[in-house]
Amino acid sequence: MRQSLRLARSRASREDSDMTSPLPIPSLDDLRAARTRIAGHAAVTPLLHSPALDAAVGGTVLLKAEVLQHTGSFKLRGALNRMLQLSAADRSRGVVAYSSGNHAQAVAYSARLLGMPAVIVMPKDAPAIKIERTRGFGAEVVLYDRYTEDREAIGGAIAAERGATVVPPFEDPAVVAGQGTLALEALEQAAQRGHQVDQLLVCCGGGGLTAGWALAAEGVSPRTRVHPVEPVHFDDMARSLEQGHRVKNEPGHQSICDAIVTPTPGAFTFGICQPRVGAGLRVSDEQVLAAIAFAVRELKLVVEPGGAAALAAALSGQLPTAGRTTMVVVTGGNIDPGILARAVGVDGAA
Amino acid sequence: MRQSLRLARSRASREDSDMTSPLPIPSLDDLRAARTRIAGHAAVTPLLHSPALDAAVGGTVLLKAEVLQHTGSFKLRGALNRMLQLSAADRSRGVVAYSSGNHAQAVAYSARLLGMPAVIVMPKDAPAIKIERTRGFGAEVVLYDRYTEDREAIGGAIAAERGATVVPPFEDPAVVAGQGTLALEALEQAAQRGHQVDQLLVCCGGGGLTAGWALAAEGVSPRTRVHPVEPVHFDDMARSLEQGHRVKNEPGHQSICDAIVTPTPGAFTFGICQPRVGAGLRVSDEQVLAAIAFAVRELKLVVEPGGAAALAAALSGQLPTAGRTTMVVVTGGNIDPGILARAVGVDGAA
Repeated sequence: MRQSLRLARSRASREDSDMTSPLPIPSLDDLRAARTRIAGHAAVTPLLHSPALDAAVGGTVLLKAEVLQHTGSFKLRGALNRMLQLSAADRSRGVVAYSSGNHAQAVAYSARLLGMPAVIVMPKDAPAIKIERTRGFGAEVVLYDRYTEDREAIGGAIAAERGATVVPPFEDPAVVAGQGTLALEALEQAAQRGHQVDQLLVCCGGGGLTAGWALAAEGVSPRTRVHPVEPVHFDDMARSLEQGHRVKNEPGHQSICDAIVTPTPGAFTFGICQPRVGAGLRVSDEQVLAAIAFAVRELKLVVEPGGAAALAAALSGQLPTAGRTTMVVVTGGNIDPGILARAVGVDGAA
Repeated sequence: MRQSLRLARSRASREDSDMTSPLPIPSLDDLRAARTRIAGHAAVTPLLHSPALDAAVGGTVLLKAEVLQHTGSFKLRGALNRMLQLSAADRSRGVVAYSSGNHAQAVAYSARLLGMPAVIVMPKDAPAIKIERTRGFGAEVVLYDRYTEDREAIGGAIAAERGATVVPPFEDPAVVAGQGTLALEALEQAAQRGHQVDQLLVCCGGGGLTAGWALAAEGVSPRTRVHPVEPVHFDDMARSLEQGHRVKNEPGHQSICDAIVTPTPGAFTFGICQPRVGAGLRVSDEQVLAAIAFAVRELKLVVEPGGAAALAAALSGQLPTAGRTTMVVVTGGNIDPGILARAVGVDGAA
């Protein structure tokens, strides 16, 4: 079974076509089982309500403060759900992950928690704070040049050599089910306070969290329209949804949203999202910086650029919000201090 | 009744002796009534648990994230509890408050919420963000020079002229009962998760929140030892507790903890604290900056200097924490952007 999943995964990563991924789509029961599995290891993060945010957006906004998750991002949920299902033998051989930062920290943290070795393949130019934190959780970090080297090849070679398990950042049913626990939790918190959620804005990179949201909303809150939010020029999910098949981003652009600048949606995650989510939204670096500043000033939350995209979309008025209940997820808070200072209007001296 | 309270209050503010304040000490029922009264207006703020904080402190730490309160500080609780008890006639004549910042915002916010005019007397050198935010809530701000003018006299004259009600920052039973709702809420949240709180660290300025904690702990969690935390050189509460009577701070010192640099404890609040709280702790500006940086990096919370004093004390290892459950309150998040940048290691240019 694990063998066939591995085969399927390597097939999926090789294909560039729109072939439906052969990985099994998690059921609502899979999401619920994931929630039970990670309970006690991952935090239940608060769903916040801010009159200042309501006023700024012009409607009722519920803010899922996932920056308060252990390791500082939602990625812990998927990593934990995947790694808690490893056999004792697999655990002893450890895990390998490639990630620019938040998934790296999540896998490193989970490995330490579960007593297994972890190797993380990270780009040399990842934010220093993310590399430091990943090492801080006890993982072995292997740096690569993202312009000349192939992280999947590096990770695959390490995994093959050690018999370690690769924990993919999104192209994996257990990872998607784990991210979906955020959605189940948030929708339950909203319902407990008497809110029906009309629309949901979520930051989107490879599409793992968006897929988790799509499945959770379909299962327990069909009225909730899920909108992925991406940086301009990195709107591969939005354009893929518009065109009905996976497209890639044009090279040559930059974004401060390091956590969500993926070249193209995953085949597996896009297959889940395509029939289930609404239009994708785009935000500029300036809108993201303004959202980070708003989070500091009004919400007292530290949000990283890639984690602030959904908040930026809500604040920029792209979606009708009057008379509606809009949920916004702030997904990660591992921000570079220089970017934080820049967002709040302080220029760093040399 | 209101008349006699006013008389009592003006008497209390005139005295410099250690005479017990004639204001009535709130009962546990008063705190519970306050909680019911402000419910729906003030947020229930989350009690967070962070493995990173546990590791840094060396014990189990529960973090009451009151920075997530509306207006960004606990002051809303006391202001609301006081102002919700005003008659319709009193409401129409409005309120007056003097405050360097967080109480100002709380009174301004509450006044707008309850549809009453508010005048706030603030020092000219209060952090710009606090003056802006107070105006942003619709209050009229009167600035004064804290070295040459008497804010109580200015506030009193405005109140007398308009027939407005003064909402004191701490020397008031309704304000103390309101701050005590934070304690009741946090102790209940801890109990729901199976924690008994051995010790509590809370930032202390005039002593209103510390008094509220003292009363709540006495009522529902007698095992919890309450420790006020102050900046070095502004340790009037700690020294007053040590000496058994109210003492003043020496002039000529500075602190970045603007929210809690009071000259001496209130007569009323000290009367409550003296028989009920443990030793006071002191923190330096450097320890406070380190705590702010820790909050950004590990907790993803924005905490202002005066709101980070208790966290700084916990992180600086002044209190035995191993094998104990320690609760820490981060009380406010209205930080100057320059101080935030400095805390995370970015020096502002010019």
